[in-house]
Amino acid sequence: MAAIREVAEWVGASDPGTAGEVIEVSGFDNAGAESVVFAVDEATLALALASKAGVVLANARLRGAESPSDPRIVWVRDARYAFATVARRLKGRGFVADVHPTAVIGEGVVLGEGTHVGPGVVIEDGVAIGKDCNILARAVVYSGTVIGDRVVVQAGAVLGSTGFGYVRGESGEYLMFPQQGRLVVEDDVEIGANTTIDRGALGETRIGQGTKIDNLVHIGHNCTIGKNVMIAAQTGISGSSVVEDGAILGGQVGIGDHATVGRGVILGGGAGVLSGKKMHGEGEVFWGRPARPLREYLKDLARLKKR
Amino acid sequence: MAAIREVAEWVGASDPGTAGEVIEVSGFDNAGAESVVFAVDEATLALALASKAGVVLANARLRGAESPSDPRIVWVRDARYAFATVARRLKGRGFVADVHPTAVIGEGVVLGEGTHVGPGVVIEDGVAIGKDCNILARAVVYSGTVIGDRVVVQAGAVLGSTGFGYVRGESGEYLMFPQQGRLVVEDDVEIGANTTIDRGALGETRIGQGTKIDNLVHIGHNCTIGKNVMIAAQTGISGSSVVEDGAILGGQVGIGDHATVGRGVILGGGAGVLSGKKMHGEGEVFWGRPARPLREYLKDLARLKKR
Amino acid sequence: MAAIREVAEWVGASDPGTAGEVIEVSGFDNAGAESVVFAVDEATLALALASKAGVVLANARLRGAESPSDPRIVWVRDARYAFATVARRLKGRGFVADVHPTAVIGEGVVLGEGTHVGPGVVIEDGVAIGKDCNILARAVVYSGTVIGDRVVVQAGAVLGSTGFGYVRGESGEYLMFPQQGRLVVEDDVEIGANTTIDRGALGETRIGQGTKIDNLVHIGHNCTIGKNVMIAAQTGISGSSVVEDGAILGGQVGIGDHATVGRGVILGGGAGVLSGKKMHGEGEVFWGRPARPLREYLKDLARLKKR
Repeated sequence: MAAIREVAEWVGASDPGTAGEVIEVSGFDNAGAESVVFAVDEATLALALASKAGVVLANARLRGAESPSDPRIVWVRDARYAFATVARRLKGRGFVADVHPTAVIGEGVVLGEGTHVGPGVVIEDGVAIGKDCNILARAVVYSGTVIGDRVVVQAGAVLGSTGFGYVRGESGEYLMFPQQGRLVVEDDVEIGANTTIDRGALGETRIGQGTKIDNLVHIGHNCTIGKNVMIAAQTGISGSSVVEDGAILGGQVGIGDHATVGRGVILGGGAGVLSGKKMHGEGEVFWGRPARPLREYLKDLARLKKR
Repeated sequence: MAAIREVAEWVGASDPGTAGEVIEVSGFDNAGAESVVFAVDEATLALALASKAGVVLANARLRGAESPSDPRIVWVRDARYAFATVARRLKGRGFVADVHPTAVIGEGVVLGEGTHVGPGVVIEDGVAIGKDCNILARAVVYSGTVIGDRVVVQAGAVLGSTGFGYVRGESGEYLMFPQQGRLVVEDDVEIGANTTIDRGALGETRIGQGTKIDNLVHIGHNCTIGKNVMIAAQTGISGSSVVEDGAILGGQVGIGDHATVGRGVILGGGAGVLSGKKMHGEGEVFWGRPARPLREYLKDLARLKKR
Repeated sequence: MAAIREVAEWVGASDPGTAGEVIEVSGFDNAGAESVVFAVDEATLALALASKAGVVLANARLRGAESPSDPRIVWVRDARYAFATVARRLKGRGFVADVHPTAVIGEGVVLGEGTHVGPGVVIEDGVAIGKDCNILARAVVYSGTVIGDRVVVQAGAVLGSTGFGYVRGESGEYLMFPQQGRLVVEDDVEIGANTTIDRGALGETRIGQGTKIDNLVHIGHNCTIGKNVMIAAQTGISGSSVVEDGAILGGQVGIGDHATVGRGVILGGGAGVLSGKKMHGEGEVFWGRPARPLREYLKDLARLKKR
């Protein structure tokens, strides 16, 4: 619960001068007098003002639109971001600092202050996990993994699993290449349900600070993922590839081994990057298999239809 | 165990007048006198009659083919469906109503009569699960999930996980958009191993009655999946998309966010639907990335070869 | 720990005559006097010799390159293979023969000598597992599964799950086709994290001897996978398909049902094989969706650009 005055302060807005308190963020339909909603355009502003919400976070560029004088409006630069900020402040982090009795914690494991370990989680020997992390139900963390602070791991994710590296013998049989490296997950990383990230073979796999990874993603051994990278569901990144800071990968993207996805590159859903390929261009969008600049991809599609 | 007379009754066939009993359905190779097999064409009818099976469920349109007078034959409209029906009646539902001692059941969880909860399952606080459900080993059900009757959840599936929704701050960092909605799984839904379904952000994710979902499927937050939809393995559906009643999605299909797959639409394996796209046509088959009517896709392929 | 003389013996090399012992394999950076490294070309040989490693396994064809007389070099036919061999000998199999107290072992389960069952693993009634297997954390093995010797199952994998086979009733509802067959996993198979393999419907699913499967792979019911097959991450194989000995499947490959991938065929990452399709050619590389010989695929790409 927070006073409306406080809410305004959290999002850097001027005090709307409204008395009263709020307890939650919500959608329009189930908003009550103690709810906070948000509006990013005129349509959603109309819905917001028609709702029973006590506070409407609205993009400042809408000022002058309908009902601008409604005392429930708190004008902000980015209403969606403000909404997420208020949600976080109202709800807190949403977990408590404890280790569920059904979790299996190996020898020599270090758990930082404020960290929660959920039911059925398995943390193997020697793993180090930082402060205020939330490791949800049935996640597995293999030996050789180091996790920073405020990391969230959703249910069923597997961190630090054995990489898929083999050498072939003369009679066609495969022998595993040693997979004895480690996995480093930096601060503020969030990892989706049933996602798998392999540890390094001899070196390390690294997930950079602030990177967010969706469900059922696979990241191979020796990959280096930069900071604030977004990786949507079911994307797969083969061994030894590099994804630089701020890149955005759509769902079901496939990246071959030893490839580089440059800083700020955007890969559309289902895009494919060949092994060894290097793609660069901050904010440039690539699409298709093999991935090419969006404009080129669209031209190819059009050409296919012309004959 | 059931009398052959009963078996005929289950599938709406006339009593073949054969005495004796059966205990199981089976393939041709290991069929015995107490086994039921099925035949959908002349080739399988020949195999069925050559087997030791005690009952042969056969498509009525085959009447007049070889050995039509074999007393083991029970003529039905759809032998495959009849076979599945008999299997279900002979075997029952195949699980008992209990909660395995290693399952973790949160506070305020409601479990309907006849429901089984397997080993290592985690059901978080406040979840409601209906009657006669089978929640298999190590599945996880997050708070905010409501499950109907006769739902089957295979091992390792994660229901109600946190959606992948973020807002980006001015310095490039991501903040999670609130993911506080719920997941509703209606009656008779079946969900595959290690599949993940996220709950709604502010609203709900819904899986309609009778829908069947294969392994390693991902369904994002706020999706609405209709009734009797089939979703094959490794398909991914991004947030806020709609798949209407009776649609059939092949394996590895990818659907962007806010897309609509209309009633009865069929998406071939690996088809890709762009964000915001709406595809309609009962029984119409779409193929490729981006998905287009099959005829058009085949023309495109042919054109590519002609030059 | 092993004498350098022994190491040479393991890899079939002549004794370099160097005294001393080694304890581990390692990368160049963290190699010490008791480490073994390897070199496959002149560049890596230079790095190896510049490192502090006590033993350098080097491809014999490099003899004559720089520092050939360095007493640390052990010349071998395939340095990468020799390196993996030494790693395996030095480290042993890396697990102990026990069953973790949190594992759930069903009735009538048979576990071979030397087999390890990790925390949270669930093995259902009647499963048979061979000798010297390593079943890692939270894997699930359904009833009806038979596992050979020296099989490794990574965390979260699900073996023998119910296949995705349904028959449709007259009112559009689906009824499960009986999924009562079995899954056979032959000797020396290795299976990745969160991978799912369904058991047969009436018959069996079979994974051949020596086959290696990466993370998040799906193998449908009644598939037959040959010996020494490689299947990279997120590949999906639909029901009743056959992959013959020595085939190599890249990541995110999709194979329809009742297809055949012939002996030694190589499918590039993301390749798609249509249902019922048969592809043959030892060592032949197929690419794209639908998969076609690499040369043809490249021509198609080039043609698309020409107009």
